[in-house]
Parts: sequence; C-alpha cells; structure tokens
Amino acid sequence: VTAAPALIALDWGTTSLRAYLMGAGGAVLQSAEHPLGILKVEGGDFAGAFRAVAGAWRAASPGLPALASGMIGSRQGWREAPYAECPAGLDAVARGLVEIPGENLVLAPGVSFIDADGVPDVMRGEEAQIFGAFADGGSGIAVLPGTHSKWAEVEGGRIRRFATFMTGEAFAALSGHTILGRLFEGEAFDAGGFARGVAHAALKQKGRGGLLHRLFSARTLGLFNKAPPQALRSYLSGLLIGWEIEEAAAWLRRKPLEVTVIGGAQLSAAYRAAFKQRGVAAEAAPADAAALGLWRIAAAAGLV
Amino acid sequence: VTAAPALIALDWGTTSLRAYLMGAGGAVLQSAEHPLGILKVEGGDFAGAFRAVAGAWRAASPGLPALASGMIGSRQGWREAPYAECPAGLDAVARGLVEIPGENLVLAPGVSFIDADGVPDVMRGEEAQIFGAFADGGSGIAVLPGTHSKWAEVEGGRIRRFATFMTGEAFAALSGHTILGRLFEGEAFDAGGFARGVAHAALKQKGRGGLLHRLFSARTLGLFNKAPPQALRSYLSGLLIGWEIEEAAAWLRRKPLEVTVIGGAQLSAAYRAAFKQRGVAAEAAPADAAALGLWRIAAAAGLV
Repeated sequence: VTAAPALIALDWGTTSLRAYLMGAGGAVLQSAEHPLGILKVEGGDFAGAFRAVAGAWRAASPGLPALASGMIGSRQGWREAPYAECPAGLDAVARGLVEIPGENLVLAPGVSFIDADGVPDVMRGEEAQIFGAFADGGSGIAVLPGTHSKWAEVEGGRIRRFATFMTGEAFAALSGHTILGRLFEGEAFDAGGFARGVAHAALKQKGRGGLLHRLFSARTLGLFNKAPPQALRSYLSGLLIGWEIEEAAAWLRRKPLEVTVIGGAQLSAAYRAAFKQRGVAAEAAPADAAALGLWRIAAAAGLV
Repeated sequence: VTAAPALIALDWGTTSLRAYLMGAGGAVLQSAEHPLGILKVEGGDFAGAFRAVAGAWRAASPGLPALASGMIGSRQGWREAPYAECPAGLDAVARGLVEIPGENLVLAPGVSFIDADGVPDVMRGEEAQIFGAFADGGSGIAVLPGTHSKWAEVEGGRIRRFATFMTGEAFAALSGHTILGRLFEGEAFDAGGFARGVAHAALKQKGRGGLLHRLFSARTLGLFNKAPPQALRSYLSGLLIGWEIEEAAAWLRRKPLEVTVIGGAQLSAAYRAAFKQRGVAAEAAPADAAALGLWRIAAAAGLV
C-alpha cells in the first residue's frame, strides 16, 4: 500500500533542483533531480521550470500543495523570502513562508545569523536539511560540506547559530587559478596526500603557520620532491578541509566530539576521513534529510 | 663626472626584467624595465633576450660582467641555480652563483628555508632586494608585498628565516573566480572599505573568525547593505593584507614594532596604510634596493 501524495517538496538551489513527491507522514514516494538550478533556468522562467518538474504530479493529484527551499527564495530567485533570524526553529521558518500567487506554491525563507561583531551570515536550503537531520528535535552540531560549508549549532531542534566556510570555492579558485595547480598531476583522490594536508592544518593549533602562508606548501613540497605530484591536489584539499575543522573548533570554542554530516556521498567521505583523523565522531545524516525537513516545515505551517 | 660602467645587474623575474647599468661603488647609471619575464621569453630564447637588454651596454664596455637574480635561475629559467639555505648572507649567495657559459653572465641562487615541520619555503630575487635594503649589515624585518608576499627576519645583514604568504594571488583568485566578486562595483581603492577589512582581520587575535569563514563577509556585508558595493573589493584586499600581518605576527612570535617595506609604490602604499592602522612603523626601502643588492652580491663574489 502506498500513501496518497500529500506534498510536492523542492530543494531548489543555485545549480540543481531536487523534487520530491511526499506521502502522508513524510514518506518519499518519488524523487528526481533536474539541472534547473536558479542560474540555469533560461530567462528566469521559474513558472515554466516548476511546471516541467511538478506538472505531472499536480495533474495526478490536483490541489497538492508545494513547498520549496533554497536559492529560489533569494533576490536572484523567483521571489524573495526574507531571512528568519537565529535562533530559528521550524516555527520561525514556517512563519516566513512567501506565497507565489496562482501556483499553490510557497517558498521557505533562509536563515541569518548576525555575529558579535555585527557581521551577517546566511544560509538558504541548508535549514531544511538540518530540520530533517534533527527531526527528533535533538541537539548537536550539523556540518554541511560544500562550496560554502555550513556548521550549525542545533539546540532542541532549533538552529542556535551557524557559520559559513568558503572551503569548496576557495579550493576551486586556488587549484584552478593560482600557481599551485601548476604542479598538480591528475584529479584522483590520494589518501596519503589528503591525510598530510589535514595533519598540516592541525599545526594551526600550535601557532605554526596561518592559511595564507601554509597554502604555499602545496607548491614547495612538490618543488622539493617531498610529495609526489599526483598527491598535491589532495594535499591542498586536505589542508583546506582540515583548516575548516580547526576554524570551526575555534568558532565552537571547543573541539567537537561528534558531528552530524549532511551532504553528498563523495564529499562527505572526504570530510569523514578528516574527522576520523582528528578524532571527531561523524555520523551521516539520512540521504533525504532535505525532503524530511521540508515536510516538517510544511507540517508546522499547516500545509499538510 | 659619471663613474665608469662596472656591472650589468638584472632583476629577472616571472613577468618582467629590470636591467641596471651600474658604476663603481654601486651607483645606478642607467636602468630599464622590459616585458621579458621568463614566462614571456618566446621559445625560451634567454640568450636572445639577454642580448636585446644588455647588448648595447656590452658593446660600449666590452668585458663588462653581468649578474642576474630571480626566476631566471629557477628550473623554468635559463639554468638552475640551487637554493642557498637559511641562514643566508651575501657570502652564501655569492658561493652559489652559476655561470652561463660564453655569456660572461652569472645567475644568483634563490634562498630556501626549511621550517620546524620540515616544510620548505623559497624565494628568488627577493634576497637581492633584502641585501640592498639592509646594505648597512643591520637587523630588522623585511616585508616584500606582492603576489607571494615575503617576510624575512634579517640579522646582521643575513636572512635568518623567512615565510611566504600567498596574499596577492589569493586576492586575485578569490575576487576573480568566486561568488565574492559578483557584488563588487569598480576597481577604485576605497579607503574606508580597506580599513574595515584590516580591522576585521585583527579580530583573528581574539579568536573571532578564521579566514575561510571571514572571507564570506565580503559577500554578506554587501547582501545586508552594511557596506556599499564599491567598497567591497577594497574590503577584501584589506582583509587579506590585514590577515597577512596577523599571520606574520604569529610567525614572528611577537607583534612587529617596525618593518622595512620593499616594493612597488602602489601596493606598498596599501601595506603602509594597513601597518599604520595596526600601529606598526613601516619604513620604505630605497627604490633601487634590487640593484644595490645585486651590486653587493657581485662584490662578495669578486666580480666587481
């Protein structure tokens, strides 16, 4: 017996869109990934993209409500849904939903955090993943690796505060557009090079080298034949991911003992290797955390 | 009365070549800059480039010795001159000169430093500038801003140890190839944005934000209208230059009270603004520090 469709849930980001047909209780009945991220929708025809993705589900179940999180609710998206400020739980995000008239679709707001120095930080879409990963209303540290990695302190199911680390994008820019990439050979993951990068990042704690300095070692270890050229790319990756972990520990004001990693399998595997090396227990969130989080937001808003 | 020509001195780097005709005592008689850095010499015809640059001086003063420092002595240059290891003074560099047969030209070695963790660092060409700036054989901290900024501890005229910071290249890669540049408007220097970046970098001391995190503020301050778009580029520049200063202070194990800045006028001005803001006295090295340093190396080697 399959539950009747109850919600169309969309995780609609910058480069891709993941769509879920969900049944009563939050079960995922069907899902599909589309290359229709907001920067890839031609002419900004979001209504057309929405029909292409959800049209068949709507036709089969007329009146089905739809909820989308992610960059679709940003200034560059379909309609801006202003940020909910930390600490932010399901209730705050549900209160901030913005309707797209005539589409029976609502957009979830992102979440913002203003730090002690008045500097803002933002997320859009990750909040749904966090609500899915912490569906039991528990507490912990969520890590969402990526272009802009996010670390969030979750307390009783609410996002207390969070920080963005530009790890993935810095890696791409530094390996593709500086002298560092010149010595790299191949793109295969090299476990030894990665582990060495993580270890060098850990020297930060001892005051031995800041990041602007340490980056140069991805060149000099190659120049002095202290690392094989096919290990250098993974070395830089390990250095940056390790650096993120060190920065995050300082941000948390303690070394984390356990974290919940939310994200794609390949990148999460690298993070899990780094966490293991640093003695941090890393639990993997369920693969459809975003869908479950969207379901919970919809429930809090009375949509389902 | 003009001194008779005694040396052809070349500061031959990656992108440009600065040539000096020097007289007895180390006076600069003539100088010229050529777009003949080692990556720009077609087909690696360094002999042809050398003749184009120094041929007229040679013809007027047959037998004039020539000395070149910089990337011309690297593996990618004309001939490799292996690094002199720190601590390195004039004597060590003079001992490492490598001859180009038939050209009456010698290449100066670069200088290397292996840190406590076994990680190498390198410079090529900066050592001549340092020997020129510290021609009195004194002690101090030399700062050479640039694509790869160098900080060196100089003791009795010798380079005791040094560190590279990839500040300039990281700025170019991050502003040109990440989301940060999207909000930038214009390339004019914005003093207020720059100062704010330096101030935010200084929060590092208080454990408030690592670099991978702090970089994202160059976007969020714009998103939240907390900084005008025409200030964001200078904000990122101030953040990175300020970060270099904080990292270097940790590397020196003390806040520097005074530094000698060696480098081009425009970039040095930004560094001097950052040093002033952080309470560090910055003295400018003479403009022709490289020429004087080359002269001193030539003298130590008995070439002049």
